[in-house]
Amino acid sequence: MTRKVTIALDVMGGDHGPAAVVPAALATLERDESVSFMLVGLREILEQARRDSKDSYGSRLKYVVATEVVGMDDLPADALRHKKNSSLRVIIEQVKTRAADACVSSGNTGALMATARYVLKTLPGIDRPAIISAVPTLKGRSFMLDLGANVGCTAEHLLQFALMGSVVAEDILDIKRASVGLLNIGQEAIKGNDVVREAGELLSRSGLNYVGFIEGDAVFSGKANVVVSDGFVGNVALKTMEGVASLIASYLRQEFSKSGLRKLQGLAASPALNALRHRLDARRYNGASLVGLNGVVIKSHGGADKLAFETAINTAIVEARKGVPVQIGKLIEDQPPECIRA
Amino acid sequence: MTRKVTIALDVMGGDHGPAAVVPAALATLERDESVSFMLVGLREILEQARRDSKDSYGSRLKYVVATEVVGMDDLPADALRHKKNSSLRVIIEQVKTRAADACVSSGNTGALMATARYVLKTLPGIDRPAIISAVPTLKGRSFMLDLGANVGCTAEHLLQFALMGSVVAEDILDIKRASVGLLNIGQEAIKGNDVVREAGELLSRSGLNYVGFIEGDAVFSGKANVVVSDGFVGNVALKTMEGVASLIASYLRQEFSKSGLRKLQGLAASPALNALRHRLDARRYNGASLVGLNGVVIKSHGGADKLAFETAINTAIVEARKGVPVQIGKLIEDQPPECIRA
Repeated sequence: MTRKVTIALDVMGGDHGPAAVVPAALATLERDESVSFMLVGLREILEQARRDSKDSYGSRLKYVVATEVVGMDDLPADALRHKKNSSLRVIIEQVKTRAADACVSSGNTGALMATARYVLKTLPGIDRPAIISAVPTLKGRSFMLDLGANVGCTAEHLLQFALMGSVVAEDILDIKRASVGLLNIGQEAIKGNDVVREAGELLSRSGLNYVGFIEGDAVFSGKANVVVSDGFVGNVALKTMEGVASLIASYLRQEFSKSGLRKLQGLAASPALNALRHRLDARRYNGASLVGLNGVVIKSHGGADKLAFETAINTAIVEARKGVPVQIGKLIEDQPPECIRA
Repeated sequence: MTRKVTIALDVMGGDHGPAAVVPAALATLERDESVSFMLVGLREILEQARRDSKDSYGSRLKYVVATEVVGMDDLPADALRHKKNSSLRVIIEQVKTRAADACVSSGNTGALMATARYVLKTLPGIDRPAIISAVPTLKGRSFMLDLGANVGCTAEHLLQFALMGSVVAEDILDIKRASVGLLNIGQEAIKGNDVVREAGELLSRSGLNYVGFIEGDAVFSGKANVVVSDGFVGNVALKTMEGVASLIASYLRQEFSKSGLRKLQGLAASPALNALRHRLDARRYNGASLVGLNGVVIKSHGGADKLAFETAINTAIVEARKGVPVQIGKLIEDQPPECIRA
């Protein structure tokens, strides 16, 4: 039997707030009977959500009132200190008390990370939680981390990222022994900087399925299930990916609207172009996990619409069912302590 | 009158060697009467090149014999120490003696940089030469540096890169006051690491047209003419760009070959698809400059074919005509010394 899970959702976060979160929750309730939600937000927003749900889901849909909202521009430290009853914080508290098995927010990334770290604490053996997300590849999808939570990492941090990334990739891709690569500027052992070279040494001895250095282009050929880097580098790579995909989409639109004839040709080509659009649709990759914490916390993109938020919810469901934090904790325990101490 | 320039070409470098270099040189000679070449390579290769040229270009095509070839896997230090008569080194020596105004090689990047730095020396005020290349954007093209020559840069190094990048962008794009951005993981002043934040301070006071932090996605919207980063980050961004473009090209090919109908639709769409391919064709962006040296040295991609090598030659011609190294030297002289000292 599928394990029942409860997911706490920040109804206030992101550009679309309840307009994305509530329909995504209702669609998931409709599709998966083993899932329950706690909607967390301002009272009047929850009252509207209750009307939208037509009270159809009984105890599978609960409402928890929060009195504050963390803004996208709030500094993480301010949100943590001064907004103790924000929807962003309350969803994390639900995970802390085990009232929920996971939480999802499209809100302020820095505030979410700072609050999650403060409330849930990091797992033993993990110095820094990281942000991990799926990216499209020729073979399907791979996972990249860290995507911006940590700049200036040590080799031990990168090893911890690799351990966490392996668990997430194995659980979400449903594979065994995920392959792990280190993002570098060449494949030879002499390339890169000291931290990356030392991390390569640690990974070789870690028992993980380490496949060596991976260059930026090889990420997208799917050479490794997990690609590990410092958060600065990973963030630049992720955003570069988004920028190039969007550039090519613009070029395609321009080329197919240059003349009446081109427009007709674009119409003829639309099945393939739509399939391409679907495969590259960022909404299908939405939902980055904050890993290394005592609990499942999923960051949805600030611009997430209903479909994108559903994807993030699905990631939360899988990670909650499989118990990603517990698995990470066990894998860390199995490591020789001198390897993972930062 | 257009200034006459002589370009020294490494006939032996890259996957295609003379098969790419010689036809590219002959095509350029045909097109631009103010250009002369020195072909540098092994004797038998030059003899074949002479036959290919049918002796049509008189003194505009000279031949200089080298007795060694630097392999793609040779360590830079070994190439520098043990292959003093390699084609890669001899082209640089031609620039050093002013027999040539610029040189181009598709050979080993590390060896080219190490040799160029040793033979030509860096310009006064420049600590580290950098690698700069054009990338496609929504508005045309921008320049990124450093692309891998330097890992672990200081804020002063990044300022030097910005100065050098401005000169190259202004000369090649033929614009005034190139806009310069710093690659970072957020636009706010608190984002990133200490080096990037400090570089932002230096750039604000530099007199350059500094436009602030730029995230990975904004590079491709053309927000700045020049995007500055550490070589590790720049290399990952460049290769990520190549990887994503190639991923999308594969997806497109797959989608347009899924069925007989899809193939027909692809045929109908081929004018736009070919135009897209042309706009993204890496050969049209080939030719990275090693900047900060007392001379113009252009690195062509190892896989460059005739068309790609011609593009690299054109970059060499423009930089030689405009005197990029002299311009960089002047711009550095105009800076307050405390800003550029690393």
